[in-house]
Amino acid sequence: MEAKPKIPRPTVKRLSLYLREVGLLAAAGRRTVSSKQLGSALGLTGAQVRKDLAFFGQLGHPGIGYEITRLHAHLRQVLGRDRTWNAALVGVGNIGRALLAYQRFAQEDFHITAVFDSSDRAIGQEYGGRAVHGMDDMPALVRQHEIKLGILAVPADSAQHVADLLIEAGVTGILNFAPRRLDVGDTISVTSVDFTLALEQLAFQVSAGLTGSFVDTND
Amino acid sequence: MEAKPKIPRPTVKRLSLYLREVGLLAAAGRRTVSSKQLGSALGLTGAQVRKDLAFFGQLGHPGIGYEITRLHAHLRQVLGRDRTWNAALVGVGNIGRALLAYQRFAQEDFHITAVFDSSDRAIGQEYGGRAVHGMDDMPALVRQHEIKLGILAVPADSAQHVADLLIEAGVTGILNFAPRRLDVGDTISVTSVDFTLALEQLAFQVSAGLTGSFVDTND
Repeated sequence: MEAKPKIPRPTVKRLSLYLREVGLLAAAGRRTVSSKQLGSALGLTGAQVRKDLAFFGQLGHPGIGYEITRLHAHLRQVLGRDRTWNAALVGVGNIGRALLAYQRFAQEDFHITAVFDSSDRAIGQEYGGRAVHGMDDMPALVRQHEIKLGILAVPADSAQHVADLLIEAGVTGILNFAPRRLDVGDTISVTSVDFTLALEQLAFQVSAGLTGSFVDTND
Repeated sequence: MEAKPKIPRPTVKRLSLYLREVGLLAAAGRRTVSSKQLGSALGLTGAQVRKDLAFFGQLGHPGIGYEITRLHAHLRQVLGRDRTWNAALVGVGNIGRALLAYQRFAQEDFHITAVFDSSDRAIGQEYGGRAVHGMDDMPALVRQHEIKLGILAVPADSAQHVADLLIEAGVTGILNFAPRRLDVGDTISVTSVDFTLALEQLAFQVSAGLTGSFVDTND
């Protein structure tokens, strides 16, 4: 394997924010943006923006700023967004069904192409035009749709078992909505979204009198 | 106002993870835990755990570790979890309804006590025993229920307007599910949860060959 550049994780998280902002600027027909302008839109300093983007070589020009089209294309490529991603969703409870109805995934080229559940009541149902399959169908469907991303929307006590099944089927990245830490091998990526944790962090800020705007994926 | 201790935000995020783990240990009847054991359960070094918890004074004892009951109570207090929090939810679309059905909020003493929507079709409906109110009822209900937390589950293009209404009504912390940055005054806390951003971060890890387990609120 070739050596991967060591990009700090906080920088990676900010890349998503840069990409979104630069996408808005591109859609508005803007040609260039300075590090200061970009930072200001995101609550960051210009120096932070320059430092983050310097990981990818000389993208900006002093006195001119960043060329938006080029920066947009570059960020998309770095973040793996220059392709379509197929994802498997496991669990059609409240959160799973909300994710199936979430139209921004498809707009952003993330497609939930296979849906699974372990309950006999759920299997065979359709949500947003997608049929719910039993867990036994997972290996074949994950292979058939070339799925690398799994979305875990199951209760905490079955999360590890389902993660193991997804990994066995060939998934290498898991978005975990279950409120527990997953033990995965060292070839698998996991990102967790925990609503209660997010609310707790907010409660902390409110009770500690800390204020300001934080994106949970921006630090 | 008294001076607030300057606790780094990554530390605050880990406090939630410590609290959850220590809660499990307490429920299992354990008396003490070492920094190494606590770190190991969360994928952190013992040194990181000791450094984080040292912000709150001398909580551990060399050779013995942390007394679980005391650490649990202390973390709850620091995180503002030694009380009940009432929250207002705005938006009963797919995400809003999933959050209303999410039972862990109530289990963790976060109570959605008022629900709002701007659509005539939604107002007057009931979800999980909670009636949906029009936006005009917001000031009175927020005051009546002493609500400090607002949960924003509305489309991106109305998010800023609804945030302004919540703040005007007296909310000081906003959990934002809309995919856009909110401009709030300097007395308001915002935490954002963005599903697409989380999936994008995962796609980046998978395409860059980065692996391992990350909690989005753990860095």
